Amino acid sequence: MLKDIDLLKEMKKKEYGETIEKLQFKLSELQRQAKELKIPIILVFEGWEAAGKGTLINELIFPLDPRGFNVYATNELSEEEKLKPFLWRFWTRTPAKGRIAIFEKSWYRRTLVERMNGSVKGEKLEKSFEDIRNFEKHMVDDGNLVIKFFIHISKAEQKLRFEKLESDSAAKWRVTKEDWKQHNQYDKYVKVFEDTIKETDEEYAPWVIVEGNDKRYATVKIFKTIIQHLENKISKIKETENNKNSDINESVEAKENYEKIISKLDLSLSLSKEEYKEKLKIYQKKIREIEYEIYTRRIPVMILFEGSDAAGKGGNIKRITQNLDPRGYQVVPIAAPSSVELSHHYFWRFWNEIPKSGHITIFDRTYYGRVLVERVEGFCSKNEWQRAYNEINEMEQQLTNAGTVIIKFWLQIDKDEQLKRFNDRQNTPEKQWKITDEDWRNREKWDAYEAAVDEMIIKTSTKDAPWTTVESNSKYYARLKTLKTIIDVLEEKIKEKKKL
Amino acid sequence: MLKDIDLLKEMKKKEYGETIEKLQFKLSELQRQAKELKIPIILVFEGWEAAGKGTLINELIFPLDPRGFNVYATNELSEEEKLKPFLWRFWTRTPAKGRIAIFEKSWYRRTLVERMNGSVKGEKLEKSFEDIRNFEKHMVDDGNLVIKFFIHISKAEQKLRFEKLESDSAAKWRVTKEDWKQHNQYDKYVKVFEDTIKETDEEYAPWVIVEGNDKRYATVKIFKTIIQHLENKISKIKETENNKNSDINESVEAKENYEKIISKLDLSLSLSKEEYKEKLKIYQKKIREIEYEIYTRRIPVMILFEGSDAAGKGGNIKRITQNLDPRGYQVVPIAAPSSVELSHHYFWRFWNEIPKSGHITIFDRTYYGRVLVERVEGFCSKNEWQRAYNEINEMEQQLTNAGTVIIKFWLQIDKDEQLKRFNDRQNTPEKQWKITDEDWRNREKWDAYEAAVDEMIIKTSTKDAPWTTVESNSKYYARLKTLKTIIDVLEEKIKEKKKL
Repeated sequence: MLKDIDLLKEMKKKEYGETIEKLQFKLSELQRQAKELKIPIILVFEGWEAAGKGTLINELIFPLDPRGFNVYATNELSEEEKLKPFLWRFWTRTPAKGRIAIFEKSWYRRTLVERMNGSVKGEKLEKSFEDIRNFEKHMVDDGNLVIKFFIHISKAEQKLRFEKLESDSAAKWRVTKEDWKQHNQYDKYVKVFEDTIKETDEEYAPWVIVEGNDKRYATVKIFKTIIQHLENKISKIKETENNKNSDINESVEAKENYEKIISKLDLSLSLSKEEYKEKLKIYQKKIREIEYEIYTRRIPVMILFEGSDAAGKGGNIKRITQNLDPRGYQVVPIAAPSSVELSHHYFWRFWNEIPKSGHITIFDRTYYGRVLVERVEGFCSKNEWQRAYNEINEMEQQLTNAGTVIIKFWLQIDKDEQLKRFNDRQNTPEKQWKITDEDWRNREKWDAYEAAVDEMIIKTSTKDAPWTTVESNSKYYARLKTLKTIIDVLEEKIKEKKKL
Repeated sequence: MLKDIDLLKEMKKKEYGETIEKLQFKLSELQRQAKELKIPIILVFEGWEAAGKGTLINELIFPLDPRGFNVYATNELSEEEKLKPFLWRFWTRTPAKGRIAIFEKSWYRRTLVERMNGSVKGEKLEKSFEDIRNFEKHMVDDGNLVIKFFIHISKAEQKLRFEKLESDSAAKWRVTKEDWKQHNQYDKYVKVFEDTIKETDEEYAPWVIVEGNDKRYATVKIFKTIIQHLENKISKIKETENNKNSDINESVEAKENYEKIISKLDLSLSLSKEEYKEKLKIYQKKIREIEYEIYTRRIPVMILFEGSDAAGKGGNIKRITQNLDPRGYQVVPIAAPSSVELSHHYFWRFWNEIPKSGHITIFDRTYYGRVLVERVEGFCSKNEWQRAYNEINEMEQQLTNAGTVIIKFWLQIDKDEQLKRFNDRQNTPEKQWKITDEDWRNREKWDAYEAAVDEMIIKTSTKDAPWTTVESNSKYYARLKTLKTIIDVLEEKIKEKKKL
């Protein structure tokens, strides 16, 4: 693991002073440029206990504008964090555009510490690596610079440092039993560290091993690494900006012909009022019982609604929640993103709202907006929405890996039914708020939306998070189908969880 | 406490069915109007254990659009909540404009349960009532409708309900030791409840006692109360809108002549580079030690920076944080509010960022923007900024009541110095990002800002949260004065806390 250490090891103090001053000035200047260019930066510090992570972070932030970064210390999981997927506390802390997030310890606790204590192993470990790779990839694809430092010290050096701390009565408390446990299993940890680095050292998010025995050497290496990567990033962005115009006005029409799906749905399916009323009562009673079962088994549930305008998302959601205990669910309506939301990855605002174990979150519109409205209206680039299918699959996989049940509904009505409902809204005073000019404009793009929906359903119906299409010309039929689907999926889950 | 109960007690089931259906329809219609008019609604449910709060909330939300409300169950304090002022978990949950927040139990836990268990009494209790009254007043002044329901049952009825629950093996767990303890102290609780209601029953945020023995009666009363208050609110808003134009173009100049403050500061105060460097080192070492003392004593600290453009806020903040442990502080830069922030009370985004016990939060610009930029630029009405002095004093009182140390700096330079710094920024490539057209425009309003600052300092320098003016023509002088002030204030606090 040791490289050009000898070169710098003997660095004189004065020499160091001059070098570091230049590097500090440079980095401070680059921070300003990164802010202007809206580059988000993620810096991870992992390494041995007593390797000096905290000290090195202090050296790093010394020249930085404190209004532009956050340092997050990754401690023991809080009660709330225990009820969320392991990436939640990091996803919600990803930096806004132009800001720096520094993680002292990180999501790698999962594949380092939790692996060593045996709580993460086998398939769960494999999945964790995959989750981490996907998470970092998503960050980089969204414009983040991601660099991961591993601060390395030898076993002998660690022992020396622990003993030195313990001999100082003011610092004694800093060495814990856990620390000595790590020390005694040093060789085992080396293997785990090496394996983790091998599994997650990607060109887009590289690991940098920093020999931590000599603080000055380590500081210089960290500064130089960040400066080099940041300069590369900045020059790439400037290049791209110069060649930008070629990318504009690209076609958003689907080139490939995907199987027709939603236009083939049998929208004549319907139900009598009597049957509806009768079954609604039964289903709503059932779903209330299920809410309780979900809660006692600590299963997190996400229910996603997408659909044509006026397809009845609100009415469906109402029938689901009407009889539920309000402490067990949350409805999150998704509107156009705010400026804060726009300055983060488009997944960010959803991670802020994902259900904790035992709870249900219902989203009225979702991140699928990326491949629907954002695609059709050109709010994102072709490259972005084409990339999104994979991103979404991977993100949903992160959630299902953590035990989340994902149920996705596409509500479909036909053009005639939509016109009828639009006119009804327009002509009924207390419904007029429901209809806007935008609805009429969207209607003109019916075919483009239809193609986008078909492609979405084909590309993002996965084993663990399949789409359910809901024939919605008949509101009665649609509502019962939605309820029945939720009941079936969750009863299945409840049975599985019983078996455990 | 019982009123028109006899009238409705005997209500027949069918009669009830018809009544409630009409009320549900009405409330659902009013929810839509409130959304359109952007009225935020806060509904509190307090009352005896087993009085039926949960059931009544369920009845209430049945006709509501689930995308428009949240129900918050107020449980035991989480670890994070324990480290924040008691109003924090409620402030951060206040509804956005047009939404409804329903609290099952609320901030009144403070003056009910915590008072009964003896952890809140005497002066602390008095302050809690004051904090609550101010909090509710701020909400109402910001346009919220606030209604507080107290669900009342008799001692005999409570006993019956506990026994009924206990005889049902599936519901048995719901009756706890604490519940019986409440029951056995019923008469004591009555006094505490009555006292709390007396102390906090205000016209702007009334208590409504609901006799809970009969669920149908209680439901009807809750619906009718909300409908009545909401209709009043809506008709008042519509009236105001009709008379609106008279309010526009009012003068934002101060009518009264306040004592001149900032123009009288001695801006010639300065320091040599040598003295600065020497003392900076000493102060930075000192403040690092203080950070640790603060942490071990669990003292929350808020440091606020306001000042003329180019007065050096960034440089001052940098000198404070440069040597601190990044895990102990946070710097929060405040820009123009986002759309989400605008849909809440202007304090909301600050409550989301207040320090937890043992930590320091530094704000680069603050809620004082209300009486500075928002006043001078006309971003809020005259009534709003004039009201803000009191609101801010009361809000800071809520924080200091909870133990928070508040240190406020106004950084002042003169017009010549500002021009020099503006020109310097304009002419130095790496500083150009710091200067915008807005800075030049603000400069033209120098006198209006000066008057606003004087009035702010006079009206919001309180005993527990005084302003410190910092003569900032000399950056060296300013930085050391800031550091020294913080050190002095915090050392004093640390001494006090030792005594405890």
